Amino acid sequence: MGNVLIKGGTVVNADYQQRADVLCAGGKIVAVGDAAEWDIPAGTETLDAGGLYVMPGGIDPHTHMNFPFMGTTTVDDFYSGTSAALAGGTTTIIDFVIPNPQQPLMEAYHQWRGWAEKAASDYSFHVAITWWDESVRRDMGTLVREEGVNSFKHFMAYKNAIMCDDETLMNSFRRCLELGAMPTVHAENGEMVYLLQQEMLKQGITGPEAHPLSRPPEVEGEAANRAITVASIMGVPIYVVHVSCRESAEAIARARNRGQRVYGEVLAGHLVIDDSVYRHPDFTVAAAHVMSPPFRDKSHQSALWHGLQSGQLHTTATDHCTFCASQKAMGSDSFTKIPNGCGGVEERMAVIWDAGVNSGRLTPSEFVAITSANTARLFNLYPRKGCVAPGADADLVLWDPAGSKTLSAATHHSRNDFNVFEGRTVTGVPVFTLSQGVVVWADGELRAREGAGRYIKRPAFGPDFSAAAAWERQRAPQAVAR
Amino acid sequence: MGNVLIKGGTVVNADYQQRADVLCAGGKIVAVGDAAEWDIPAGTETLDAGGLYVMPGGIDPHTHMNFPFMGTTTVDDFYSGTSAALAGGTTTIIDFVIPNPQQPLMEAYHQWRGWAEKAASDYSFHVAITWWDESVRRDMGTLVREEGVNSFKHFMAYKNAIMCDDETLMNSFRRCLELGAMPTVHAENGEMVYLLQQEMLKQGITGPEAHPLSRPPEVEGEAANRAITVASIMGVPIYVVHVSCRESAEAIARARNRGQRVYGEVLAGHLVIDDSVYRHPDFTVAAAHVMSPPFRDKSHQSALWHGLQSGQLHTTATDHCTFCASQKAMGSDSFTKIPNGCGGVEERMAVIWDAGVNSGRLTPSEFVAITSANTARLFNLYPRKGCVAPGADADLVLWDPAGSKTLSAATHHSRNDFNVFEGRTVTGVPVFTLSQGVVVWADGELRAREGAGRYIKRPAFGPDFSAAAAWERQRAPQAVAR
Amino acid sequence: MGNVLIKGGTVVNADYQQRADVLCAGGKIVAVGDAAEWDIPAGTETLDAGGLYVMPGGIDPHTHMNFPFMGTTTVDDFYSGTSAALAGGTTTIIDFVIPNPQQPLMEAYHQWRGWAEKAASDYSFHVAITWWDESVRRDMGTLVREEGVNSFKHFMAYKNAIMCDDETLMNSFRRCLELGAMPTVHAENGEMVYLLQQEMLKQGITGPEAHPLSRPPEVEGEAANRAITVASIMGVPIYVVHVSCRESAEAIARARNRGQRVYGEVLAGHLVIDDSVYRHPDFTVAAAHVMSPPFRDKSHQSALWHGLQSGQLHTTATDHCTFCASQKAMGSDSFTKIPNGCGGVEERMAVIWDAGVNSGRLTPSEFVAITSANTARLFNLYPRKGCVAPGADADLVLWDPAGSKTLSAATHHSRNDFNVFEGRTVTGVPVFTLSQGVVVWADGELRAREGAGRYIKRPAFGPDFSAAAAWERQRAPQAVAR
Amino acid sequence: MGNVLIKGGTVVNADYQQRADVLCAGGKIVAVGDAAEWDIPAGTETLDAGGLYVMPGGIDPHTHMNFPFMGTTTVDDFYSGTSAALAGGTTTIIDFVIPNPQQPLMEAYHQWRGWAEKAASDYSFHVAITWWDESVRRDMGTLVREEGVNSFKHFMAYKNAIMCDDETLMNSFRRCLELGAMPTVHAENGEMVYLLQQEMLKQGITGPEAHPLSRPPEVEGEAANRAITVASIMGVPIYVVHVSCRESAEAIARARNRGQRVYGEVLAGHLVIDDSVYRHPDFTVAAAHVMSPPFRDKSHQSALWHGLQSGQLHTTATDHCTFCASQKAMGSDSFTKIPNGCGGVEERMAVIWDAGVNSGRLTPSEFVAITSANTARLFNLYPRKGCVAPGADADLVLWDPAGSKTLSAATHHSRNDFNVFEGRTVTGVPVFTLSQGVVVWADGELRAREGAGRYIKRPAFGPDFSAAAAWERQRAPQAVAR
Repeated sequence: MGNVLIKGGTVVNADYQQRADVLCAGGKIVAVGDAAEWDIPAGTETLDAGGLYVMPGGIDPHTHMNFPFMGTTTVDDFYSGTSAALAGGTTTIIDFVIPNPQQPLMEAYHQWRGWAEKAASDYSFHVAITWWDESVRRDMGTLVREEGVNSFKHFMAYKNAIMCDDETLMNSFRRCLELGAMPTVHAENGEMVYLLQQEMLKQGITGPEAHPLSRPPEVEGEAANRAITVASIMGVPIYVVHVSCRESAEAIARARNRGQRVYGEVLAGHLVIDDSVYRHPDFTVAAAHVMSPPFRDKSHQSALWHGLQSGQLHTTATDHCTFCASQKAMGSDSFTKIPNGCGGVEERMAVIWDAGVNSGRLTPSEFVAITSANTARLFNLYPRKGCVAPGADADLVLWDPAGSKTLSAATHHSRNDFNVFEGRTVTGVPVFTLSQGVVVWADGELRAREGAGRYIKRPAFGPDFSAAAAWERQRAPQAVAR
Repeated sequence: MGNVLIKGGTVVNADYQQRADVLCAGGKIVAVGDAAEWDIPAGTETLDAGGLYVMPGGIDPHTHMNFPFMGTTTVDDFYSGTSAALAGGTTTIIDFVIPNPQQPLMEAYHQWRGWAEKAASDYSFHVAITWWDESVRRDMGTLVREEGVNSFKHFMAYKNAIMCDDETLMNSFRRCLELGAMPTVHAENGEMVYLLQQEMLKQGITGPEAHPLSRPPEVEGEAANRAITVASIMGVPIYVVHVSCRESAEAIARARNRGQRVYGEVLAGHLVIDDSVYRHPDFTVAAAHVMSPPFRDKSHQSALWHGLQSGQLHTTATDHCTFCASQKAMGSDSFTKIPNGCGGVEERMAVIWDAGVNSGRLTPSEFVAITSANTARLFNLYPRKGCVAPGADADLVLWDPAGSKTLSAATHHSRNDFNVFEGRTVTGVPVFTLSQGVVVWADGELRAREGAGRYIKRPAFGPDFSAAAAWERQRAPQAVAR
Repeated sequence: MGNVLIKGGTVVNADYQQRADVLCAGGKIVAVGDAAEWDIPAGTETLDAGGLYVMPGGIDPHTHMNFPFMGTTTVDDFYSGTSAALAGGTTTIIDFVIPNPQQPLMEAYHQWRGWAEKAASDYSFHVAITWWDESVRRDMGTLVREEGVNSFKHFMAYKNAIMCDDETLMNSFRRCLELGAMPTVHAENGEMVYLLQQEMLKQGITGPEAHPLSRPPEVEGEAANRAITVASIMGVPIYVVHVSCRESAEAIARARNRGQRVYGEVLAGHLVIDDSVYRHPDFTVAAAHVMSPPFRDKSHQSALWHGLQSGQLHTTATDHCTFCASQKAMGSDSFTKIPNGCGGVEERMAVIWDAGVNSGRLTPSEFVAITSANTARLFNLYPRKGCVAPGADADLVLWDPAGSKTLSAATHHSRNDFNVFEGRTVTGVPVFTLSQGVVVWADGELRAREGAGRYIKRPAFGPDFSAAAAWERQRAPQAVAR
Repeated sequence: MGNVLIKGGTVVNADYQQRADVLCAGGKIVAVGDAAEWDIPAGTETLDAGGLYVMPGGIDPHTHMNFPFMGTTTVDDFYSGTSAALAGGTTTIIDFVIPNPQQPLMEAYHQWRGWAEKAASDYSFHVAITWWDESVRRDMGTLVREEGVNSFKHFMAYKNAIMCDDETLMNSFRRCLELGAMPTVHAENGEMVYLLQQEMLKQGITGPEAHPLSRPPEVEGEAANRAITVASIMGVPIYVVHVSCRESAEAIARARNRGQRVYGEVLAGHLVIDDSVYRHPDFTVAAAHVMSPPFRDKSHQSALWHGLQSGQLHTTATDHCTFCASQKAMGSDSFTKIPNGCGGVEERMAVIWDAGVNSGRLTPSEFVAITSANTARLFNLYPRKGCVAPGADADLVLWDPAGSKTLSAATHHSRNDFNVFEGRTVTGVPVFTLSQGVVVWADGELRAREGAGRYIKRPAFGPDFSAAAAWERQRAPQAVAR
């Protein structure tokens, strides 16, 4: 890895922005400030960042590469998926290990580690808890202590598959507290979804338009509220993935306003795409948008933006999970069989910049917070990732706020044949992306290398846990002597 | 039944109050107005209501008389329980038929009908749905169409006993909508309660103080929110029994503020008693207060009052369910074995008048609304019950706002040996109670007659149901033609 | 006045509905029940109400007939205005006496009484407090005690004209409490409106599209919140007129949820018309919609409906205040000179039935509550007005839920040349209207008689006031002895 | 200024904490990391920070030193006040220039600059807008552009003195937006306070117990809501000083949840002291607590904590404004004449650490955020102040989380004879404080030097302003062409 000097840009961190040069060496940032004061080693490559923002590379905490799901496997593997990420300015993903019910956690973990070896960017894993017994409890400990996993995912939907009931939630959340790991939830009430799906089919509504009807916002709000209640009782922080609607955003805000440590993630798609897509006359188009939770009516979008603006929602992600038209066609007779998932790992940063910063909703620093720094903090990657500072990994994106492009499946780097942002023109684009100090995206040229990405261990007991422990000590129940 | 003329009082209905005389004949009210204009039949008994309010008798929509529960049976049967009610100005109770899981509904219904024959006041029944199969579905129809049951109860607590899971809630709520019956819920998350109970025992906290610790407000709020979500999805109104805390009051208010038809009931005890009782050094006292949901810290009381004042909570009840000290002692080793329940059917009206009307929280008309009229409307007994008007049953209470008494087990009419309101002095007391036009409580003298009470059938399809149906027609899902 | 028998209809009151006949005599309702049991006097006119709802006539608590405002006078006087009301099923209006600043209240009162003598329906008056000195204080007493005025209006907008500042609000609200009169407010921050008007003109935005821009929802929410705070401090109930937006609906709900007695009125227009009208290319059309508060974007409508459904908003009105095209043209150069006001007194009942009852938002009883009974109660006209019961005024509307008509200036009975509901087809129409027991609208034929309406005195100390007094006694401040 | 090396501590910033050494030279931090890797200049003083947290010195954005108010002047001048601050770990204060009405702003500004020259710590100034004319408008420009003032204060209370009306708020807020300066408000409705004061006196309640009765939470919530509305209309960020109650915390949260940039400050005293102090039988004690807003009943404290925890409130301060017993005695006949103010600049950090971090409400990083970093960002001092990083001013506090002390007037460094935290024992204390790289507080020894503090200019157009401008561009009103 050669040295790189980024000159003349505006460095943006979550806490402030400043005109500064950045020197990278050995895959790390070694200096931020005025290059005139530094000894620049010979052979250092210089990038002209005049007019550009120099920001920490995006972290997408919610992707599914190489994901075997609903009888098929996503078209993007870890190489194509992370390549697309790099092209969009995202330099780290956190993907998911999802054991089948009864599958040993460690076995699933090693499967995913194997699949991920070809990744072009750094990556890490959440592990899903899809069933419960003593071995699961034990393996959670192993994963945290030996494998650098500090977050576990719980699906409250997908009945008869990977759904957790309340008892498992409680067991797992308690275990998370002991281990200093963050519990996360996919919040939809799987029982209600299942019943509504049956209802739709019974009424003969079998197309993609039935998908959002079977997963209304209420079932998401209900599940979010329930998971948050479990976390409250256990005294453990909680992170709600893909908050898509007012109802769950409000459940999070309510809990936070009672002092609870609850965090919410928003997908780029939910911020700008609405549910009219499911009534598109072309099945292919409608089915391409089938993901869970579904896109919502426009009125929910402002709730999500307001949550990000007010600090009641914290991170942005994509749930990148790509199935091509022929895979989506598995559900041509029944929407319940359409593989769930949409892309976006490449587009997230630009879509959010365009709709968030250009509109005045967000400052550039707030953009960095919700696309990178907050995720790094919550999952204890900070300050290795998520900031531009000496000592941090040299994962950077150089952003041109005046640049513009039109998003399209024709030009994106995912292997998918559809782009949910098709035709959207955004202002604000990545010009250079650096991963481990290497330029991997240079003004339209993708230089991703298969296998260059590293598995990133994340230490347990992030910053919230000592506070959580102190709080619990205070409210410990006391017996009455009689 | 002879005639009774009530002269010189102030008649209070939920909509307004006026000076008026009331004539009762044949068990009915036959005239309200100026007695000087009426032909009063010879032999009419006259009650002097000067200085008194003449109000519809209280309706307590939540009692458990003769209830076999947790291995024992309440000390009050239908005779003693309804006698106490009459002494307190309550002239109708709605009790519960609670089948054991797998017990045919009709069998349980007939059991309870038999036990109730000795009642001194009119009574009706909610029927609990404690399990689900096709026979339950069918019997719900029979109960509604032939037996005058228009409400079904669902326990979300009591795991491994009578608890409903979400699937049963959905099946039953849908059936309620078809039948025009009101679903009601006991809202506590039974899974969470169960785990917390085990936790308390494991920590060696086995006394009554563990009872509220195992049932914190969050678990009630969670369940209320979940049941309301089910009702929302089904498009059926819903009634939440014994709302005891801010969290569930807010869940109800939130739903109402979205236009949903949700109703909440508050117990007299929760309005004025707080959870310090569970830390009483005397086990007997502490155990005597064990009921579910438990008494809460004082801050919740204002949420309940505000709900009643603002019209976001609607009815008041008692959950009268009496176990004596020796029964409560079954749980001396483990709070989980203390039979749950407290009395109050006699005290409710006076406690609420004293704390509600004397304080300026409620007008007399609002008092009538929350102690009688609203219940009558919601359970479709109105205007037969719940108002003072010609044609209504002559179930009346003559209230002395200046009278005062001190509540006590020594003087109450329940068979129980404990009174949760012990020592509380209230201003505002019933001087006369009439049931079916007969004076059954006369200034301290109880004239209740065993078996005088009637089973009251309640017609299905109360006023909300046509609106609910219209609303559902509007949002019926539509397939996209492709 | 001859007798009228209304046979075979469904009588709808706010508390319940029933199949019943109604007999009217001497301008009053004398019997409700089964005509077969009555002696019907010879010469009684019979109306066949088969298939019809028999409801209390509407009460519109917010009209401005014969109103001299902004340099001109409304086209509807008390005769044409109340005639239109009767044609629409509204049988009572409460109009406003609005003294000029410095004008003695009694003088203004007598002016308006004079103008109102030609009214065809019963009417009453709120009196506005537009300035303050000792004479105003005294005259408020006279009006309440001798003239049957029990409500006073306060304009928080219209700077340099009739606007009240906070000091006057406080003085007047306190006086209202003493007198047992309801303070009401037009809630818009007049300072903010004034500044925004100047701003719009400065930017060269002079047309009607500037009207809503100068009166955004925030300025209404602010004023509502402020007035409610004053009322809270004074311990007096308060009624907010024409709540048009989420912000003020929420201010009301917040206060109610703290136990405060706050009431809100909604205009029919705000429930169904949105602010796109102000951008209509035809000045005449846009200007015809200029009223304050203005129509809002559609998202506010659901907040208003939800308020009415949940009981957090209480009454409906029109603010009927009609200016014709040539009057509106006074503001062709500056929107600030367009006389503010729209019609609707005839259309209100049908518009609300159609959008409220047909949609399932409201039951027929709830419709009666918000169009008539609640207003009668709040302004202490109940049960003389607002219910169908023996002893009440025979002000009735016979409603055909299946009938339909298209609203239009071409067919309405106001003198105005514009109808804000133009072209809207409603299902649910008045077939007969009775005022004082006389049929004044018979299936399309208007039989209004000039001067037939009576001035209705309203007694002070409505039901809230004794509760308010009790509450205040409880929280009376106490000095510390030192 | 010699060099200082801080070895072996845990450096805490708002974004994360790490074990690190800190080297200070020339009044600046020059390195953070591992001292073993550095060349340490000879003569460097070494502080052993083993077991200590090394945090940015506190910034108190709300103090009044040498303040002439209510006919007297605070006992603490800029020397004694900032000395006390340093003893408590606070290294920067932002005080207030408060012109008399009609006094030229520049004149007042220079007065305060003169008084402040003796300060021992760095300091800056907000300037109050107490009246309005063209000169005020012009001087605001001069202050921002030439004097480094980037925030203006508006008193909504203190009628007949320094109170702003809505018109002045609007003029000034608009000017702030133009200048890139933050408007701040003291939110209490001065009209209501005035009337309630008169009321109390009239009722003969003249002691300090009348103080909170004349300033109930509602009047604060009202004013906060109003100021926020003005800011919303103007499109300018806003900062609400000393949020003391649920009502104003909620007003802030509501606005933030609509996407508005609103910030709230909490005083240490309001977090832990309740209003029972005003009923203390000793006038001296009661009067010593008279400040505005007053201390509130305990239920408000959790609202303030929850606001800080959830990020809806942002900074902490003291409103340090000290009057001794003889000054407070000016109000012995009337509470309205008691000079308003309490101390706390020394105690703030320890009180908040003890009640916030030890309880588990806050992490150490969150403590830094609310005591220093957030203030630095909002008032555009960051990263010069508010973080421990190379280039920042060497204003540091070394904190011993295990140390303990009992707060008392007997030992504090303010000149005041009373301490509102008297007798409170806190765990977590400052061991060393560095100002400009100089140790000014060393384990109980105060080495403050008169005049060592510098006036700190704060640049305009902090980070929010470009976003605010973008937002405003989006919603710019458009005329309709007709």
